[in-house]
Amino acid sequence: MIKKQIVVGLLGFGNVGTGTYQALEMNREAIKEQSGLDISIGKILVRDPQKDRSISIPPGVLTDDAGSILNDPTIDIVVELLGGLHPAGELMLQAMNNGKHVVTANKAALAANFKALEKAAIDNGVQLRYEASVAGGIPILNAIRTALCSNQILEIKGILNGTTNYMLTQMTDHGLAYDDVLKTAQEKGFAEADPTDDVEGYDVANKLSILIALAFGTIVSPKDIPTKGISGITKEFIGEAKSRNNKIKLIATARNNGAGLEYRVEPEEIPFHHPLAGVNNEFNAIFIEGNAVGELMFYGRGAGPLPTGSAVLGDIIDIGKTIVPGRV
Amino acid sequence: MIKKQIVVGLLGFGNVGTGTYQALEMNREAIKEQSGLDISIGKILVRDPQKDRSISIPPGVLTDDAGSILNDPTIDIVVELLGGLHPAGELMLQAMNNGKHVVTANKAALAANFKALEKAAIDNGVQLRYEASVAGGIPILNAIRTALCSNQILEIKGILNGTTNYMLTQMTDHGLAYDDVLKTAQEKGFAEADPTDDVEGYDVANKLSILIALAFGTIVSPKDIPTKGISGITKEFIGEAKSRNNKIKLIATARNNGAGLEYRVEPEEIPFHHPLAGVNNEFNAIFIEGNAVGELMFYGRGAGPLPTGSAVLGDIIDIGKTIVPGRV
Repeated sequence: MIKKQIVVGLLGFGNVGTGTYQALEMNREAIKEQSGLDISIGKILVRDPQKDRSISIPPGVLTDDAGSILNDPTIDIVVELLGGLHPAGELMLQAMNNGKHVVTANKAALAANFKALEKAAIDNGVQLRYEASVAGGIPILNAIRTALCSNQILEIKGILNGTTNYMLTQMTDHGLAYDDVLKTAQEKGFAEADPTDDVEGYDVANKLSILIALAFGTIVSPKDIPTKGISGITKEFIGEAKSRNNKIKLIATARNNGAGLEYRVEPEEIPFHHPLAGVNNEFNAIFIEGNAVGELMFYGRGAGPLPTGSAVLGDIIDIGKTIVPGRV
Repeated sequence: MIKKQIVVGLLGFGNVGTGTYQALEMNREAIKEQSGLDISIGKILVRDPQKDRSISIPPGVLTDDAGSILNDPTIDIVVELLGGLHPAGELMLQAMNNGKHVVTANKAALAANFKALEKAAIDNGVQLRYEASVAGGIPILNAIRTALCSNQILEIKGILNGTTNYMLTQMTDHGLAYDDVLKTAQEKGFAEADPTDDVEGYDVANKLSILIALAFGTIVSPKDIPTKGISGITKEFIGEAKSRNNKIKLIATARNNGAGLEYRVEPEEIPFHHPLAGVNNEFNAIFIEGNAVGELMFYGRGAGPLPTGSAVLGDIIDIGKTIVPGRV
């Protein structure tokens, strides 16, 4: 097997960056053996290279200068893990304009700039991958992009936010009130101090926008997706749903109804016997219906450093396989 | 986008062949638009080209001469859907020796000849794909082959046979006896007149052998997998499991225990809260644990003409993308 050196530059070294680094450390030799790719992380953009870290990084790898990554001719793939809209979007564009392939886990920057980023990838003949941006470690985008090309997608229904699914599960299983489970979720680190993005469904709308682009070939801005979160869900609502043999889940839906595409993010009652009803706590799942394959469901961890790092690393490997040695 | 003509020859036109043909008819234009591949079925090997069929096939496509497919220079991909060991294995080898890529749904012929078939693919510089051989429409092999390369697989646990899962579900949900549900399954066409392959677990052992080869890189012959079916499962056993909050499922397991690989096919008690416990009736699912991604589950239809045809067509498209125009 031909051995290829692939050098990666990371922009950002928070949870997902650390998870990506660790997933690579754990599996570098196995990846080399299986795919012939010798992947190394050449540089990592951080705010403060001198800061004490739990992981020991070789000297010279950490930098606070984005340009030293984007302009480094030895770097093949730039992995954007900064989060937020700026400067993430600009740095991805610049990386592609410099001939780098780009991998991102940043749903907000991706959904906000989908057209421009896809165009930059085509214009520069590079690849743009974002498996980790939707449902963490679950390889749903890969499935839509490859195996499910044999289908026209009729419907996608997803539980795409672990925080709200954890909260709804706790309310359902233990009859707890919204405010109490939110407090517990915050204490456990499942919810942020300002939980708006999660509980109002904005995080899910970003992910649905990306799923729609890939599955239906239609660009819908997250702000144009009718979005309702779970902040209005009381334990009484959940009890009433239960009495109808239903569970309340925060569901992202996109459906080709024949005349066009319907989409929304909102709490829905899901019958106990539906596969999505069994998706509990911090787990995510995507239920997808194709016109040939029928009903499929993909289930797994939608967040966490290693699961998300697994998805980022999967994209790096996938791009790595297509890189012709000596291209740079 | 560059348009490519891809010509396929089908060996066999039973359930899966018909499903593949129909999936392509339904989605040909969408595939062309999305991937640039213009896929057509050039020839189909059948026993009797004159037989009345529910689908109308253009004249000249049906043939009873395998050689007219294997030696046709216009055919890029040979799709083997004959079932059984012979002549399926020999025809796949011959197709690859003739420079054709091969797609198969035939778990028995694949598991029995795995090494020889993989070697023929490498020797001839062609691709061998078999997504439909395990869990029908569920794209589990594609996930292992691509997105999950970023992981070392620790464990696979699968419900891989729809017939036995239907039977166990009926016994569990309605307290029915084994013989009664077998009879109903046979009447509904879910079980064959001779159900041995399904109920004794041999069908599952073939599928597990293929999963092990791909996920762990180890060739284990199906006959070397300790295999126990469900014919000894009484409604009393199921009742006792229920009293322990468990369901009995026919489970294929392969686990890397650190020192080596453990594998078996046998009925197991699965706790109600485990995702596999919610996989009912004719559905299949594969639960997979990677060292980075953690727990994933893939759920869908493990059989049926269109779901299986979806997997066959997915493999055809995937190979088609790699074919350099003008190669033949």
